[in-house]
Amino acid sequence: MAEHISKQFDLELETIRTRVLQMGGLVEQQILSAIDALMSGDIARLDKVAAEDALVNAMEVGIDDDCLHIIARRQPAASDLRIVFTVIKIITDLERIGDEASKIARMGKTIHQSERYQMPRFREIEKMAGVALAMLRRALDAFARLDTSAALELAEEDLRLDENFASELRQLITFMMEDPRTISMSIDTLFMSKAIERIGDHAKNISEYVVYLVKGKDIRHTKIEDIKRETLGR
Amino acid sequence: MAEHISKQFDLELETIRTRVLQMGGLVEQQILSAIDALMSGDIARLDKVAAEDALVNAMEVGIDDDCLHIIARRQPAASDLRIVFTVIKIITDLERIGDEASKIARMGKTIHQSERYQMPRFREIEKMAGVALAMLRRALDAFARLDTSAALELAEEDLRLDENFASELRQLITFMMEDPRTISMSIDTLFMSKAIERIGDHAKNISEYVVYLVKGKDIRHTKIEDIKRETLGR
Repeated sequence: MAEHISKQFDLELETIRTRVLQMGGLVEQQILSAIDALMSGDIARLDKVAAEDALVNAMEVGIDDDCLHIIARRQPAASDLRIVFTVIKIITDLERIGDEASKIARMGKTIHQSERYQMPRFREIEKMAGVALAMLRRALDAFARLDTSAALELAEEDLRLDENFASELRQLITFMMEDPRTISMSIDTLFMSKAIERIGDHAKNISEYVVYLVKGKDIRHTKIEDIKRETLGR
Repeated sequence: MAEHISKQFDLELETIRTRVLQMGGLVEQQILSAIDALMSGDIARLDKVAAEDALVNAMEVGIDDDCLHIIARRQPAASDLRIVFTVIKIITDLERIGDEASKIARMGKTIHQSERYQMPRFREIEKMAGVALAMLRRALDAFARLDTSAALELAEEDLRLDENFASELRQLITFMMEDPRTISMSIDTLFMSKAIERIGDHAKNISEYVVYLVKGKDIRHTKIEDIKRETLGR
């Protein structure tokens, strides 16, 4: 009987892990669609991405609820408890990535519908989004495989994405100074890059929670050298 | 003995609640200092605010740890579990408010040290920060008193803060178009208002968790009318 209960419990834990990955997949898809639709100027698809945010939100609320039920009924300890705790934290980041994807979609629509639409600087946006998306996939993959090495990679990738954002900002400022008529559109573009940069931050957070899940060690807010020590000293 | 254990448990729950309020107090102070130092151009104080972020981060990690210990040792159910869950969620928002306060401090420093420093538009920033700070205080107060009515007020305040941000954005765009030399500084100012606008979002999140804590009902991502029904139908 004990074994049966334990198996049932394992199944429940496996189910919430799967649901986190499904939520992650949905959020990935949102980013991908937002960028595709932005590049092609597909307004209907941009609307669809913005609307999908409700789905992501509902998944967060549902998974939180599952976690609470598991805690209340299973009274998990040690690594089981770490799984539940990590899930609660990770889905907060996933939900906020979903918010950023919707924002990109909404701002993309504004730019495409604007009469001031002159010269899109979307190639940089596309490149940055590619990096952020790869970071998210790497973080979710790390969660699926309990792979702590992603944390270091993502901390480094995140620095690179921050640099990309800073460089995009400088370019946009130059652009605006050369032709002030582009200011409004450039600001929208700037907020899109900011949203992408934040997606990178959230992906990094997720990979840090994976380290906590696997090692029981909290590496949030630590320097890259400490992350290196924690994740490579396996 | 059972009563003793229960009293001890109550004390533990009370302690984490107090620590959340302390963390909230620290974050409030950070915002206040950042804005004061921004207005007076006090670089040393701006540096201090940016550095204090480490303290806020450490508090988040510490409180999370306390929550995990309580779950593992006390196996809370029902409303006790809701307290722990709510705390885990609320401190994520508090930590991110701390991030935004540091960002304001860092950007304030950039503006004050910039040679392009021409005409600060800090009065609007100060006004918006006042609203965001009041929202945060209201949310923390709601958590302290288990007061669900804050959620509705804060949902409405948040809409107003979003409008303030939109209006600030329009003003800054006009400003930049009139004198493109102000572009760089205006962008910094814009990111400061964005940071303040986000503080409002986080305060709203906190008040929604309080409704969940008190009513066991998740009102995240719901329309303002539903919040009204949930929080006023007492």
